[in-house]
Amino acid sequence: METPTQTPTPLPPQPLVKPSKAMPTINVTLRFFTFIFLLIAMVIYSVDKGTMVLPDASTVGVRFSDIIAYRYVLSTIVIGLAYTLAQIPFTLYRIITGRYLMTGRSNILFDFYGDKFISYLLATGTAAGFGGTIDLRSALSGLGVGDFFNEAGAAASLVLIAFCFSAGSSIISSYQLSSTY
Amino acid sequence: METPTQTPTPLPPQPLVKPSKAMPTINVTLRFFTFIFLLIAMVIYSVDKGTMVLPDASTVGVRFSDIIAYRYVLSTIVIGLAYTLAQIPFTLYRIITGRYLMTGRSNILFDFYGDKFISYLLATGTAAGFGGTIDLRSALSGLGVGDFFNEAGAAASLVLIAFCFSAGSSIISSYQLSSTY
Repeated sequence: METPTQTPTPLPPQPLVKPSKAMPTINVTLRFFTFIFLLIAMVIYSVDKGTMVLPDASTVGVRFSDIIAYRYVLSTIVIGLAYTLAQIPFTLYRIITGRYLMTGRSNILFDFYGDKFISYLLATGTAAGFGGTIDLRSALSGLGVGDFFNEAGAAASLVLIAFCFSAGSSIISSYQLSSTY
Repeated sequence: METPTQTPTPLPPQPLVKPSKAMPTINVTLRFFTFIFLLIAMVIYSVDKGTMVLPDASTVGVRFSDIIAYRYVLSTIVIGLAYTLAQIPFTLYRIITGRYLMTGRSNILFDFYGDKFISYLLATGTAAGFGGTIDLRSALSGLGVGDFFNEAGAAASLVLIAFCFSAGSSIISSYQLSSTY
């Protein structure tokens, strides 16, 4: 009776995607590039100014805050910058201390939902940026604000690149849902 | 020697999120609603017409295809409709046959990336819809196309709702990455 009888143990379930040591390194790189592209986009929107020449030859200054869509894009950029900036030290800490694999259900879920939300937000940011540029540039063509809209379009492209990096982050943090360690 | 000695077996790793039988049912419901809202949005865009009264009192007909942003929104709607329509029978099949839990790495990954892509696409669709509406409506105010833009804005709201449902789908299919059965 001292040696308990043991039934054959079934193979433990294996996670679909094995978390690897490379993941946090990739993730911090992705977040770093998200941050950089958002920062450049923010600078471009901030300095983007134009002068609209009305039919009566009077002029009106135009800047990003005059376009509601651009104000929305700026909001998504600022939220994205704050989130990636806050995340980078945590990810670096995990790499430096060698604690590559996230532990704790709440950490994993925070990263999962955080990355998902921010990447959706940046997707809407870039689309609103393009949506508020292309047709408005046509509608206001001839008023001398072509360059203003071209620069805003370039900034929206940078938000698109930042979105791609953050979508990569979101894929990695989804994979970490299957981390069972 | 007939009874092999057994070392104590460590507890098998547990998936972070247990896949439940409710998930495919929730998922098919989410996809159904995504489909319905996209369908209504598509109809609204298709029938949305306006008449622009130019300063010289001549009139020009306006429909969704005249606004580049709306053409993009329509494209995302059509892709979203095709994807959800194709997914619904597969999910229903799993529920009806009782095979609630997805098996097969490729199935799980297809759902994960498919839902992720479609939800990002719909996020850009709704944002492009709003971005191409709000400022253009202001810029062209007084030309009699307010109602045209209001209806397009309503359609963009429906795409927003459809996006929320598809984001829910994407969360569920991310959780299924941790399904180890």
